[in-house]
Amino acid sequence: MNEVNARRPGRPASQPGDQLGKREKILDVAEDVFAEHGYAPTSLRHIAKRASVNPALIAYYFDSKERLFEEVFKRRGTQIARRWHELLDALEARPGSTPSVEELLRAYLTAEFEMKVSGAAGQSFVRLQARVHDETDAMHFRLRREVYDEATQRYLAALERALPNVDPADIYWRMMFIIGAFLYMMSGVDRLDDLSGGRFTSGNIDELVARLTNFVVGGMERATTNYP
Amino acid sequence: MNEVNARRPGRPASQPGDQLGKREKILDVAEDVFAEHGYAPTSLRHIAKRASVNPALIAYYFDSKERLFEEVFKRRGTQIARRWHELLDALEARPGSTPSVEELLRAYLTAEFEMKVSGAAGQSFVRLQARVHDETDAMHFRLRREVYDEATQRYLAALERALPNVDPADIYWRMMFIIGAFLYMMSGVDRLDDLSGGRFTSGNIDELVARLTNFVVGGMERATTNYP
Repeated sequence: MNEVNARRPGRPASQPGDQLGKREKILDVAEDVFAEHGYAPTSLRHIAKRASVNPALIAYYFDSKERLFEEVFKRRGTQIARRWHELLDALEARPGSTPSVEELLRAYLTAEFEMKVSGAAGQSFVRLQARVHDETDAMHFRLRREVYDEATQRYLAALERALPNVDPADIYWRMMFIIGAFLYMMSGVDRLDDLSGGRFTSGNIDELVARLTNFVVGGMERATTNYP
Repeated sequence: MNEVNARRPGRPASQPGDQLGKREKILDVAEDVFAEHGYAPTSLRHIAKRASVNPALIAYYFDSKERLFEEVFKRRGTQIARRWHELLDALEARPGSTPSVEELLRAYLTAEFEMKVSGAAGQSFVRLQARVHDETDAMHFRLRREVYDEATQRYLAALERALPNVDPADIYWRMMFIIGAFLYMMSGVDRLDDLSGGRFTSGNIDELVARLTNFVVGGMERATTNYP
């Protein structure tokens, strides 16, 4: 997928003053295209066409598809991580009581869904994130680690303190189940409509966050059983 | 992605007796390739190369990538659906007591994870299923409906009977969260290792099914709250 680099024609002619604008525009378009098609099938040429720029300009700014994707992913991924920290800081700064499981999980989910409702760009990123979650190459694993681990680990530690009677292994496993559930709901392909024969639909984000929070609290607080 | 059809050379020379074997082999290889790369980036040419057959032979048997994928998906998808029916039949045939939430959800998850541990092919299918769950074109939605809806709706109806005090909307929403959680865990890219700093790993399927069942029962039985 590196066809642009193969015929990379060196620096393009000097750009007028809107360089920064063009760079951001390429990131915006790349975010949309990666969200629509996923990582593997997307080429720099495709992104260039949609952005109405020369592929050489993308190569000039970002070098390769991998590097471009990395910038797209980090641009909003770090916003989510920062928001996770802020919401947890606020809960932990509150005098008198430690955060409850429900407060922790609502905060964790809120940061993700805030991004989704922040506008078309946020929605695009959230869909991208859901689409690439099953990419298994080293780059994707590294990006998830770099962008999300530190903040998520703070929530896990807080959950361990809030649930002294639940096996820590369960707390970590359950966090995986929660991540799976919200990635699925954010990918916009859930089958609520189909499976309920139209009785229920999943369009309302506030309803989704409230119902999902309630569900994951029930799962997270469930007593540990003796596993086989 | 229909490049094979474009130059479809008509029926290939008559095949020796192992026709059925070749057809099955193409399905097996296609399953692996779709599981590895997803639907969109995979071409018939790629599958032909991996199967060491002429692309024309795939076109002869399956006509198009879409039709080939449909056969791959239905071949084992219908096995899972049949297993769902069998397990539920057994629970409902038991005299005296209606199935509990835990029995229903364990059966639902078991059918999926049985496929995963049934061998390399089952594992490949399960990964394929997780990989294409976010494909949004009409074919994928149609296949999911055709293959999975009837059986899943039986479980939903049984859950409604088992949980008369939970809002039916919650039961359906929660089933979506459960589907999201198991698809994520089946895609083989969960981050349990990373996030726990190696304290816990997700390799053991029996442990996964037990912990996931316990989690989803906690979520499914949780009292409905007043949502905003």
